[in-house]
Amino acid sequence: MRADRPFSAGLLGRIRANRPLVHCITNYVTANDCANALLACGASPVMCDEPDEVAEMTSAADALVLNIGTLNMRTIRAMHLAGERAAARGIPIVLDPVGAGATALRTETAVRLVQELPLALIRGNMSEMRALAHALGIDAGRAAASPAARGVDAAPCDAVSDGGLPQAAAFARELAGRTCSVVAITGAIDVVADASHALAVRNGCALMGEITGSGCMLGGISAAFAAVGADDVLGAAAAAVAYEGIAGQMAEENLAPGEGCGSFRVRLMDAFGALDDSALAARARVEAL
Amino acid sequence: MRADRPFSAGLLGRIRANRPLVHCITNYVTANDCANALLACGASPVMCDEPDEVAEMTSAADALVLNIGTLNMRTIRAMHLAGERAAARGIPIVLDPVGAGATALRTETAVRLVQELPLALIRGNMSEMRALAHALGIDAGRAAASPAARGVDAAPCDAVSDGGLPQAAAFARELAGRTCSVVAITGAIDVVADASHALAVRNGCALMGEITGSGCMLGGISAAFAAVGADDVLGAAAAAVAYEGIAGQMAEENLAPGEGCGSFRVRLMDAFGALDDSALAARARVEAL
Amino acid sequence: MRADRPFSAGLLGRIRANRPLVHCITNYVTANDCANALLACGASPVMCDEPDEVAEMTSAADALVLNIGTLNMRTIRAMHLAGERAAARGIPIVLDPVGAGATALRTETAVRLVQELPLALIRGNMSEMRALAHALGIDAGRAAASPAARGVDAAPCDAVSDGGLPQAAAFARELAGRTCSVVAITGAIDVVADASHALAVRNGCALMGEITGSGCMLGGISAAFAAVGADDVLGAAAAAVAYEGIAGQMAEENLAPGEGCGSFRVRLMDAFGALDDSALAARARVEAL
Repeated sequence: MRADRPFSAGLLGRIRANRPLVHCITNYVTANDCANALLACGASPVMCDEPDEVAEMTSAADALVLNIGTLNMRTIRAMHLAGERAAARGIPIVLDPVGAGATALRTETAVRLVQELPLALIRGNMSEMRALAHALGIDAGRAAASPAARGVDAAPCDAVSDGGLPQAAAFARELAGRTCSVVAITGAIDVVADASHALAVRNGCALMGEITGSGCMLGGISAAFAAVGADDVLGAAAAAVAYEGIAGQMAEENLAPGEGCGSFRVRLMDAFGALDDSALAARARVEAL
Repeated sequence: MRADRPFSAGLLGRIRANRPLVHCITNYVTANDCANALLACGASPVMCDEPDEVAEMTSAADALVLNIGTLNMRTIRAMHLAGERAAARGIPIVLDPVGAGATALRTETAVRLVQELPLALIRGNMSEMRALAHALGIDAGRAAASPAARGVDAAPCDAVSDGGLPQAAAFARELAGRTCSVVAITGAIDVVADASHALAVRNGCALMGEITGSGCMLGGISAAFAAVGADDVLGAAAAAVAYEGIAGQMAEENLAPGEGCGSFRVRLMDAFGALDDSALAARARVEAL
Repeated sequence: MRADRPFSAGLLGRIRANRPLVHCITNYVTANDCANALLACGASPVMCDEPDEVAEMTSAADALVLNIGTLNMRTIRAMHLAGERAAARGIPIVLDPVGAGATALRTETAVRLVQELPLALIRGNMSEMRALAHALGIDAGRAAASPAARGVDAAPCDAVSDGGLPQAAAFARELAGRTCSVVAITGAIDVVADASHALAVRNGCALMGEITGSGCMLGGISAAFAAVGADDVLGAAAAAVAYEGIAGQMAEENLAPGEGCGSFRVRLMDAFGALDDSALAARARVEAL
């Protein structure tokens, strides 16, 4: 059954009807992109990271995003306070471990959030996910061989190709099982998995790696999808990954001659707004692994 | 007389001639949008929120914007220090109570700023303004019936329609009187008022609600207009509201087929730069209520 | 020899081949622009300003940018910690003294960074550079006559014209000598100098002054150029200045009728990606002074 339609359908319509409030504790580099992407997909974003108010904001939210891209001691505290409230309320929490592996603080912060909170979804690139797995003591092939991450971009050796898909799927399922959450490992081919099922998503385009914010926006968008599709987070995450990927393809198709990464960003936002459930279903390339 | 030309004319020319320095203590989500919008209308923006330097920066400024969109304890302190200096110098202070009503910290911060500073203008959506009024003990119909705000977007029930204009105008005048400032309540129809006069501004377009930053940019732009039109803050605020609304209409008119919210943001910035006083006067739809 | 080709050639190719990691401690207003500009020129940006992790991030970086545009006590501490690590590792450090002269904190922070770190490059507008020079006790004509800076834009009286070039060159060489770094003073005509040579760069266009981020992006881009051209920082800085200027010219040439500053920003990013070493060499207007 999953093989026929391995992602949840109809979620964009539900987002646009219900306008879920997505509380983001996120970095200042891509906060504007995340807010606009959430608005374009139909959700209502709110950014708020003061420890004194985050729990109250989370109390009104339908999903919570914890993105450690420009973390500091204050915002780490805010993430735990908001996370506890989200856990108490049962709303989906999405962790985006930006730069895990690049510094001890990032790795440790991600590990603590994984250990203390019932995360619905962890979204990162393969380098971040391997660093996280390594720190969690998971010895799943790729994790064991992980080189140190550098900055916030995936290491070239961590690119997922067709040949590496079975190994990536096994790693994703293992990480999902140990963290009791769905994981979305994004790259040229995206792998989304829970403890027992892994999916490959073959949407997206190379230009998405040439702008900042692709990953962060997906973290936010996934939270919106999970907010309205909490009964099947794996399917919701796969739908979100496909949604962003298809929007990227549409943006690339709409580039005029001579246009590059700047125009691509603009047309990506246009595509987020234009894409609906039927176009998403028609163009999604999600397959069970 | 107000009915004939209820907004101040010629302010864009004055901004472009005098290049007022607008000190913004604002959120990191839309700071870039605010800086670019201020530059496009002809002002000089500076963002600065360290308590150790804000008063000195305000000493050189022509207007001050206090936007609580991503407030924290440090920036709240900075707002008070900058506000006191602005008050001592007599430059216009604009408060943008983003998310007032959504958390106690936001509501209380907005209330304290209202109570301690001689604000020239308060700009917010109806949900924020009702929450603020309620916290100030104003029992003006809509305020009393205010539901809890959720996030930073106006509640659907707070949309201002033609039928609700008289009530909205009464509320705006009441809030303006109690806070001794001009208020600009933005929405599908914008209402700008001081204690005795209320104006409706019927510019703008629906797309402005589908991007982040419309409200924050208006807060900044209003401060620039007030800096050069301090003798009539009501007229300056109405002109600023009309300016942004007309720019939005121009941006929408300039959209190519298939373009959406991403392109709209770009063309909005283009329109901010292109719009001059004569076009503003020709297209402004401001009426006394 | 410098007169024939006073800037380093081939650096864009090296950036795109080596993908230097540029650690930026920078302001939240233009952080997104800086990240995208760095990606478009081929580098890998990482923004990170928590004192607990900055040294570790710098340990993996190929260059460090210290931009004080929205400095606070925490990020000032982070700048020193990261700077010390960068110095120990011998990677290029670029200082962008945004708003030096506008507040004592900014001037003092810039002075301390100059005094404590072996900076490769200082990039600022003439008002910032004069304020910095004045605070360093340099009495070099223009520095002595410096009016107080206001905000973060250069004072009109600080515009560099053809007539003022000899004086600007002398000032730039003096400042470079005293700070033991290359200086890049950007404006209508850019002046880049070390203690013994000064260059004028005549690329760029007026629209670059009408958007926020031109200067900050150049700070980041210069760091990427210096990372791969550390044997000749003067030549690398001149190449970076020409690169951004030519990209600005290309963006302006590509504007459609009716497009303004919003579209210019988009096309500037497109141009950053499109420009290669041969186009850079063909269009650069760098001359020895």
